[in-house]
Amino acid sequence: MASSSAQYNEPPSIFKTLFVAKAEKKLSFEDIGKAIGRDEVWVASAFYGQAKMTEEDIDKISVVLGLDTTSLRKEVGESWFPHRGLGPAVPTDPVIYRLYEGVLVYGEAIKAVIHEKFGDGIMSMIDCNITVDKKKAEKGDRVVLTFEGKYLAYSKW
Amino acid sequence: MASSSAQYNEPPSIFKTLFVAKAEKKLSFEDIGKAIGRDEVWVASAFYGQAKMTEEDIDKISVVLGLDTTSLRKEVGESWFPHRGLGPAVPTDPVIYRLYEGVLVYGEAIKAVIHEKFGDGIMSMIDCNITVDKKKAEKGDRVVLTFEGKYLAYSKW
Amino acid sequence: MASSSAQYNEPPSIFKTLFVAKAEKKLSFEDIGKAIGRDEVWVASAFYGQAKMTEEDIDKISVVLGLDTTSLRKEVGESWFPHRGLGPAVPTDPVIYRLYEGVLVYGEAIKAVIHEKFGDGIMSMIDCNITVDKKKAEKGDRVVLTFEGKYLAYSKW
Amino acid sequence: MASSSAQYNEPPSIFKTLFVAKAEKKLSFEDIGKAIGRDEVWVASAFYGQAKMTEEDIDKISVVLGLDTTSLRKEVGESWFPHRGLGPAVPTDPVIYRLYEGVLVYGEAIKAVIHEKFGDGIMSMIDCNITVDKKKAEKGDRVVLTFEGKYLAYSKW
Amino acid sequence: MASSSAQYNEPPSIFKTLFVAKAEKKLSFEDIGKAIGRDEVWVASAFYGQAKMTEEDIDKISVVLGLDTTSLRKEVGESWFPHRGLGPAVPTDPVIYRLYEGVLVYGEAIKAVIHEKFGDGIMSMIDCNITVDKKKAEKGDRVVLTFEGKYLAYSKW
Amino acid sequence: MASSSAQYNEPPSIFKTLFVAKAEKKLSFEDIGKAIGRDEVWVASAFYGQAKMTEEDIDKISVVLGLDTTSLRKEVGESWFPHRGLGPAVPTDPVIYRLYEGVLVYGEAIKAVIHEKFGDGIMSMIDCNITVDKKKAEKGDRVVLTFEGKYLAYSKW
Amino acid sequence: MASSSAQYNEPPSIFKTLFVAKAEKKLSFEDIGKAIGRDEVWVASAFYGQAKMTEEDIDKISVVLGLDTTSLRKEVGESWFPHRGLGPAVPTDPVIYRLYEGVLVYGEAIKAVIHEKFGDGIMSMIDCNITVDKKKAEKGDRVVLTFEGKYLAYSKW
Amino acid sequence: MASSSAQYNEPPSIFKTLFVAKAEKKLSFEDIGKAIGRDEVWVASAFYGQAKMTEEDIDKISVVLGLDTTSLRKEVGESWFPHRGLGPAVPTDPVIYRLYEGVLVYGEAIKAVIHEKFGDGIMSMIDCNITVDKKKAEKGDRVVLTFEGKYLAYSKW
Amino acid sequence: MASSSAQYNEPPSIFKTLFVAKAEKKLSFEDIGKAIGRDEVWVASAFYGQAKMTEEDIDKISVVLGLDTTSLRKEVGESWFPHRGLGPAVPTDPVIYRLYEGVLVYGEAIKAVIHEKFGDGIMSMIDCNITVDKKKAEKGDRVVLTFEGKYLAYSKW
Amino acid sequence: MASSSAQYNEPPSIFKTLFVAKAEKKLSFEDIGKAIGRDEVWVASAFYGQAKMTEEDIDKISVVLGLDTTSLRKEVGESWFPHRGLGPAVPTDPVIYRLYEGVLVYGEAIKAVIHEKFGDGIMSMIDCNITVDKKKAEKGDRVVLTFEGKYLAYSKW
Repeated sequence: MASSSAQYNEPPSIFKTLFVAKAEKKLSFEDIGKAIGRDEVWVASAFYGQAKMTEEDIDKISVVLGLDTTSLRKEVGESWFPHRGLGPAVPTDPVIYRLYEGVLVYGEAIKAVIHEKFGDGIMSMIDCNITVDKKKAEKGDRVVLTFEGKYLAYSKW
Repeated sequence: MASSSAQYNEPPSIFKTLFVAKAEKKLSFEDIGKAIGRDEVWVASAFYGQAKMTEEDIDKISVVLGLDTTSLRKEVGESWFPHRGLGPAVPTDPVIYRLYEGVLVYGEAIKAVIHEKFGDGIMSMIDCNITVDKKKAEKGDRVVLTFEGKYLAYSKW
Repeated sequence: MASSSAQYNEPPSIFKTLFVAKAEKKLSFEDIGKAIGRDEVWVASAFYGQAKMTEEDIDKISVVLGLDTTSLRKEVGESWFPHRGLGPAVPTDPVIYRLYEGVLVYGEAIKAVIHEKFGDGIMSMIDCNITVDKKKAEKGDRVVLTFEGKYLAYSKW
Repeated sequence: MASSSAQYNEPPSIFKTLFVAKAEKKLSFEDIGKAIGRDEVWVASAFYGQAKMTEEDIDKISVVLGLDTTSLRKEVGESWFPHRGLGPAVPTDPVIYRLYEGVLVYGEAIKAVIHEKFGDGIMSMIDCNITVDKKKAEKGDRVVLTFEGKYLAYSKW
Repeated sequence: MASSSAQYNEPPSIFKTLFVAKAEKKLSFEDIGKAIGRDEVWVASAFYGQAKMTEEDIDKISVVLGLDTTSLRKEVGESWFPHRGLGPAVPTDPVIYRLYEGVLVYGEAIKAVIHEKFGDGIMSMIDCNITVDKKKAEKGDRVVLTFEGKYLAYSKW
Repeated sequence: MASSSAQYNEPPSIFKTLFVAKAEKKLSFEDIGKAIGRDEVWVASAFYGQAKMTEEDIDKISVVLGLDTTSLRKEVGESWFPHRGLGPAVPTDPVIYRLYEGVLVYGEAIKAVIHEKFGDGIMSMIDCNITVDKKKAEKGDRVVLTFEGKYLAYSKW
Repeated sequence: MASSSAQYNEPPSIFKTLFVAKAEKKLSFEDIGKAIGRDEVWVASAFYGQAKMTEEDIDKISVVLGLDTTSLRKEVGESWFPHRGLGPAVPTDPVIYRLYEGVLVYGEAIKAVIHEKFGDGIMSMIDCNITVDKKKAEKGDRVVLTFEGKYLAYSKW
Repeated sequence: MASSSAQYNEPPSIFKTLFVAKAEKKLSFEDIGKAIGRDEVWVASAFYGQAKMTEEDIDKISVVLGLDTTSLRKEVGESWFPHRGLGPAVPTDPVIYRLYEGVLVYGEAIKAVIHEKFGDGIMSMIDCNITVDKKKAEKGDRVVLTFEGKYLAYSKW
Repeated sequence: MASSSAQYNEPPSIFKTLFVAKAEKKLSFEDIGKAIGRDEVWVASAFYGQAKMTEEDIDKISVVLGLDTTSLRKEVGESWFPHRGLGPAVPTDPVIYRLYEGVLVYGEAIKAVIHEKFGDGIMSMIDCNITVDKKKAEKGDRVVLTFEGKYLAYSKW
Repeated sequence: MASSSAQYNEPPSIFKTLFVAKAEKKLSFEDIGKAIGRDEVWVASAFYGQAKMTEEDIDKISVVLGLDTTSLRKEVGESWFPHRGLGPAVPTDPVIYRLYEGVLVYGEAIKAVIHEKFGDGIMSMIDCNITVDKKKAEKGDRVVLTFEGKYLAYSKW
């Protein structure tokens, strides 16, 4: 690791307050998402400091969690921007590793199909919505994880 | 990298033949998938040596590509099992990197939502189906990438 | 290492309390396991923050260790989920390194035999029970380490 | 990776001949093991260049596979010793990765229980027998992977 | 590095032919760029297998370099897509390292100014044009390297 | 990472004060740059401890931010020199990663064109000015990131 | 580095007390070793948390250093086991690096000679005594570093 | 790994000839060492391209192995110098890993004792003789590995 | 990074006091070097905890900086030995990176010339004096960095 | 390592021819340097593909080595530019490692003295001359390695 970055990259400690308040209120991300009109995955990513809340998001979340909006606004308000990217380069937590394994094992296949269906470009991970759903099945429930991202074609110049 | 592995991990060279035949026949993975009754992402992963074809898959693919089934059966038939995992630990190709970035940025959020919806377990990447679809949208087409994997709960003993 | 993860991945400090109480009571993991009806390896993994205790586990452990159940429940109760994965990518402690060496040296052989016995799939490390036993032998005691995990076949789609 | 090692670490190409002969004879490692009086995991590890066959092993295997014993003896006979350790530091193949995950997630717990049951020492991975068994179960077959290794106490001097 | 990728990631050998023909014709990338109506940096990136040429690009380049268009079309034509990303993770060539150093030293500052000027988003490296110009100056010529990429805002959902 | 460096490489904590004061005054780097006669990117790099402010810079910034010049002068004045280089070797934040991707994908092409236009030398990242501009475009605003660095020829001796 | 390990791997802070007491008493490891009947290298390794002291060792060391035996017993007594392995994967301290260089440069030769002299096995680093001696020589003193470890043969099964 | 080094670092292929001739003559390194008046570890290190043979060494070895001295002299004679350093940064072969583990676990202790016995300096790995001996013992033979290197004091200037 | 090393490798905090006192006295390393009769580079390396001061050095430095000699003697006196090696494996600070680049680009050439001029040996970095001088030149001042180290020949045994 | 780079970064094979011709003519780099009017270190770096020869250099070297100038001109003539940077990130050869150790141990001290003597800037490794000299001394010859590089001040903008 290159030096000197901790000071700037650590997410503000206010995020811990959010987790504590959520646990005390016994709210799920789905509950909060419904209350503020956003998807639960987006809400979770915001709690992990990986998404930027608007002033409005902050106000609504403050209400839901019973927090004072001032300190939230001060620490992660308008002038704060997330430093995205969490955890080690190769994840160790098995839940997250499985996603990584999906990239290792199926990345080339996904790339090939994207190119055949769309051309020489990528699926944006910036303009991308991510959802997690439960699908009932006889042999056991299934997780449905969907990335819906804008197709971006490579420019030529 | 630890030593001595190249000899065992390199996918059989027969796979190159598949790509060449596919290019000459101007077939997409979707075409092949339809012809053999499998999804295009699975077909692509098989071409990249990341899935095990049944004898039946091999025969059907041989017909579609106009290849002799014998050498395919010999090299990647019954007794061959894939060594899965392609490319560098942190992908460099931008299409694949975006998937990796999805893990880095949203991995914790996805993990949190899976736990809240299902409990202490994971989404299997073994019993998992992956599809890529195109969604038309006014502001530009969107890629819909879906992982549907079985939920597995941690055992206690 | 990617940035910003310490805040979320560190196991709650309550786990230290468990170790201290265990040492003061001079209890082994086997003692605790018997008292709460679980295997000692599972108990140890829970103390290291690598397994999720049920509310019932928490209550029983509190009794055995003479701890107040409230703070345990609060910190690692229902809404807490483990971030699994401990220590460096290549272990340095000789006890743990030997396990890693087992993977390096015998991983391919184990994989080959699993495929021959079961087919194209894996041994689950999620639905997996692990035990450590002592086997008396003339030339010196032997450690018997057993992983018993569910076989999962690769899906085709 | 440090330089200059490929020339010395690559396993002799004769091993490929073993795999080819085994595939043609449609023999499993279990078949070969039974024929030569060794466990299938040990046989597989020898095929991967991870164990040293005695002259007698070589002769028996030559018979089973219908190979000339001379070239086997010449290349991996008395004066040849394995360079053990296969594949990348963090395995990418999902079967092998699961074993590695076992080390990451349960390594500390296994270490703790070994110490409590045996004292300050390790389970040898040199004087260690490894077996893979199938256990039938209603909810699906289970893999039973056992390491039985000698306990070695740390010396004091 | 993860295993098994060389076969798929190596750029087709036809690219070497391009470099040889260019050297023999004593053409600069600027010459070729002007002849085919593209910027020299784009042309160079295509020669390094980092951009996808259209059929028309291929035909024009074939004419300029005096090459047969058939083999170019066959190897890197319609069905070929670049695997982008060249060289080691930390570049060693001093020219390229300086660019990397620009990211290390000024990356945070550039990020901060992009956020202040545009909001919570990124400069696309997909829809991005890159040019290199020479600026005469008394104290010595200066290189003007410009990235002009589309601003993409993070989606909320 | 090699040992023992944190003590010397961490930027002085005074830099945090600068960020706090800037946020409270609701000033952008552009505002501060204009007030002290420097470009906003340079100002931002100074706030991140990546550039050395002159005594005059320090005094002007103190005025703009309403800070006492003494402590700034004491901590990052004449005798302080930046330890440049921020964050991990491969950036994880998507904004910064895109710049890194530019090096991975276009580094060789940029190098080739610099050599053709200038000869055997480099673009200096020391005597280099960096600017970020907004370019309005119909299909969406574009970021214009410019590096203007002195060309340095390799010495021969 | 994988996550979450600091809490469990850091040696107890009591070890610092040992170093301080040793420095104040102006005792060498040789002095302490003689006083407690152990070799100086073993004593030093115990001070670095790399060896497990018996209760008797603890009592004797407490006497020699004039420390209270209670806190030593409590922190690193019966129920404590060392997490062995100190410092970075490639040592940076020149004294330690030279040992590492010995492995890099002479490791293969040592391995070859061990195999020729003993067979297919290893020198144990668990049942191993290590000493450092001074040998006077005209051209300058020489360090004599000796590892005496039990030979362990690979098991066959 | 940095680029472009294979061409210069690979040991000349003549070394393979040495190993083959040695195997055919059924000579141990000890045999060769005795015949040419050098220690077996040094001989082995020369065979691995890790030591520079004098012209006289080359001639004697040619005689012992029945090789033509000309090609040996041509390839690794006067003007050839070894590129030392074999294998991966963290060894995977268990024999060599144990030596590495010795550095990880006992490196700090050895360093401390060297300093106490000699002062602020190192044990040279350049002016260093290495031997491997067998020591008979009731509980099993022991390997005695000795490094005898010159002590070098840090200069002051 | 291997575990558990921070406690032992961090340089004593007294070194920070030295830097603070030096800054307050507005002394350069050259000033201090002249006052105590040592070269400025050596003095700087001592301040960074990379060289061992004699008792006399400590006393002189205490006088020059107006510090109490007792605490310096206590923390980094007779019984303290440096843990050398600062910063990341690949330096990020541009000043230090340029030195590293010198090793990457010219290391092989320097090695070749040392061998031709001296034989099979090395330039010691232990018995080595390092100086930095300024050389005036019309086109701009030049830094003259000199390493003068003892030549050490490889031993044969 | 990122993918796809071998094809472009490997130095042309013509360089091997240079080494062979030099060995056959029994010329040192010093001999060649004198014959063509360049320093031996520069000549060696050119042989390793780390410097760009002018057409004149190529002609002179061809004469000295008795080679045909045509193929040299064709392969590494006008349109060829070096990809600089040889060997692994942390060198393993002891001669080169000692230089690297110089950076690790003395890098910060050298940086501090450069800043004090010159200001906020660097010593260029582009406009830098490197020489190796032998200095006779009673206690053994010494290597004098000198880097003389232009000082470059950081720009402000």
